[in-house]
Amino acid sequence: MAIANRIGRLGTETAFAVSEDARAWAAKGHDVYPFHLGDMNIRTPLNIIEAAHKAMLDGKTGYCPAAGIPELREVIAADLGKNRGISFKMENVSIQPGGKPVIGKFFQALMNEGDEVLYPNPGYPIYESQIQFVGGVAVPYGYRMTKNGFEMERDKIEAAITKRTRFFVYNNGQNPLGAESTDEEMQWLADLCIRHNLWVLADEPYFHTRYSGKSKSITSLPGMQERSVILMSFSKRYAMTGWRLGGALGPKAVIDVINKLNVNQESCSCQFIQYAGVEALKGDQSGALEINRVLKERRDVLVAALRDIKGVTVYNPEVTFYLFPDVTEVFKRRGYSDQQKFRLDTLRETGISFCSRSHFGKPLPGEDRVYIRFAFSGINVDRIREGLAKLKAYWES
Amino acid sequence: MAIANRIGRLGTETAFAVSEDARAWAAKGHDVYPFHLGDMNIRTPLNIIEAAHKAMLDGKTGYCPAAGIPELREVIAADLGKNRGISFKMENVSIQPGGKPVIGKFFQALMNEGDEVLYPNPGYPIYESQIQFVGGVAVPYGYRMTKNGFEMERDKIEAAITKRTRFFVYNNGQNPLGAESTDEEMQWLADLCIRHNLWVLADEPYFHTRYSGKSKSITSLPGMQERSVILMSFSKRYAMTGWRLGGALGPKAVIDVINKLNVNQESCSCQFIQYAGVEALKGDQSGALEINRVLKERRDVLVAALRDIKGVTVYNPEVTFYLFPDVTEVFKRRGYSDQQKFRLDTLRETGISFCSRSHFGKPLPGEDRVYIRFAFSGINVDRIREGLAKLKAYWES
Repeated sequence: MAIANRIGRLGTETAFAVSEDARAWAAKGHDVYPFHLGDMNIRTPLNIIEAAHKAMLDGKTGYCPAAGIPELREVIAADLGKNRGISFKMENVSIQPGGKPVIGKFFQALMNEGDEVLYPNPGYPIYESQIQFVGGVAVPYGYRMTKNGFEMERDKIEAAITKRTRFFVYNNGQNPLGAESTDEEMQWLADLCIRHNLWVLADEPYFHTRYSGKSKSITSLPGMQERSVILMSFSKRYAMTGWRLGGALGPKAVIDVINKLNVNQESCSCQFIQYAGVEALKGDQSGALEINRVLKERRDVLVAALRDIKGVTVYNPEVTFYLFPDVTEVFKRRGYSDQQKFRLDTLRETGISFCSRSHFGKPLPGEDRVYIRFAFSGINVDRIREGLAKLKAYWES
Repeated sequence: MAIANRIGRLGTETAFAVSEDARAWAAKGHDVYPFHLGDMNIRTPLNIIEAAHKAMLDGKTGYCPAAGIPELREVIAADLGKNRGISFKMENVSIQPGGKPVIGKFFQALMNEGDEVLYPNPGYPIYESQIQFVGGVAVPYGYRMTKNGFEMERDKIEAAITKRTRFFVYNNGQNPLGAESTDEEMQWLADLCIRHNLWVLADEPYFHTRYSGKSKSITSLPGMQERSVILMSFSKRYAMTGWRLGGALGPKAVIDVINKLNVNQESCSCQFIQYAGVEALKGDQSGALEINRVLKERRDVLVAALRDIKGVTVYNPEVTFYLFPDVTEVFKRRGYSDQQKFRLDTLRETGISFCSRSHFGKPLPGEDRVYIRFAFSGINVDRIREGLAKLKAYWES
């Protein structure tokens, strides 16, 4: 059996190992608090389910255009354009079976072998994997914790740019940090991309998962829309993670190439699910509001409970359903040197399951703090309270 | 705008141009008989639709494992194993958003740059496109029409094998030919693949779309299961083309790699659609029987009507919903030299829309007959009768 050489360059989501640890522990009869999950334990709003059902009964069970049904492409163009203060047409939209396919297709469409790509680390691990798999050079950039959240390490980013740098992966409303750029940081980044003629993958799956304020896209800034592809997704906004519905938005010439990749790789995305997507965006929004209300309550309880533990510092983000607490003091106080042992011991003593910093990329030189990631998308508020009481007792013991 | 170099190697389905011609002609108010479509105008059976709806209501709207839900992997392993007389376990199955993703993932998992792949031409155009896109060398092989259908050009296949040949794409129940191997031809191919240590992509989407007899898979032959990946699909068997549900079946080591590609490229296939897939395979089969009954009636009417046209020779296949008539005499009698002009004139004179041989690959050296492809999956029997009467009148005029 000879597996192809390129598979050696393919990464994965190592957080699956955390899910497996949690599953194995629960299978032994233990109570597990699943803060490791990036999935949601909230069902899709009923109006969206019924729209899918109606479309099936109406016979929307056959193929549709590779780029997606025109109705959905139009409503996405209008919705994203309105929310970003820019203009998109149907021809700027390519429907995908989820947000994730946009990552690989963006690089397949635009990147040549040896091109360098700046990507966030800690960040979504599929960036690095897909950059390397498609033949690029993945160059990580980091964030620094400040009083007000996290900020990009601008000096290091500027120093990392070479003649081969062609792409910047920008996830504003960042997983796992929950970091958002200030207006000033975003303008700095836009200037940098224009100055160095970089394309931006604007990964915006959490654009509508927010608890105050208003999300902002780098594509709103002058000179950026024409050098950006937005990754949009229905997953978080409408609790549709398992439906696999998303899209790529960008200049027509790039979208045309992505549509040709669709023809080759999937034919099209599920037709009746696309009709449900039209209902999601055009129909009653009370389901989406309720999703964010539930998530905000969880966030408020979890942030307060974490801050109540001695030695934990945590930023309270207005976007995403992740927290990225600094637990360095707890880690040192309890005499750890191995972050996975710390994680597993906590699971076994309290049932609390979380991801480590290393599940979001290999730590960068100079990192000396210990961070972990809590997701609150898959656990109810009562269970958050119950679990965090155990965690406080254990970590402070 | 610099599109990546690899996109220059990416092909497409040129038959979309035929759809566009038909659409444009219909938009002018003309009656079109859509024999060009590979899609089905038959709705998915109701029990499958209701299973999807129930799964949605039950909250199967979140992520599921990248390889697919265990229930579906098990039922596919059992179904395909039983129908091929071999044994598959869950670990041999990777669920995909359609059958098509298996083509690209098979080559991504196993093929290195410069490896040579024998693929059928005429055949499904995505084979050639994906072989070249992923960096392989696409080597076409042809078929000869016989009294009993089509047979592989064995002499040319043997002559085309070099030290770099590593893969054979085999579509038994072939689109567009409707060709099936005799037992003797299939054994010859198995011996060839074993002798030259070739991997086989066994593309079997039409395994259950048949009107008499029993389908046979090359994976049933000794020594073949361990060197084959089966492409299976729910599309044709259950009229689920637009649902995008299929799977790859093969040795665990290959399936593990394909699952890792799933993690990177889509996360997973839609969860509730997978529950509908379980119902499709385990539930009431009367819908599937009715689909084949309807298709058989269409085939019988269409074959008889085509054979009634002077100068048309057509094989009557027991599998697929395609016919591949030899229309050389009509073409010559009417003084044509350009096959696209012949196709367009026929559309404009009769409303009959069909694909040409060239939509299934570049003609091979030595081809001197003119073939076209009729699909009967998207047109009812009354319309077949009506359209073919016009076609006979025009082509015999």
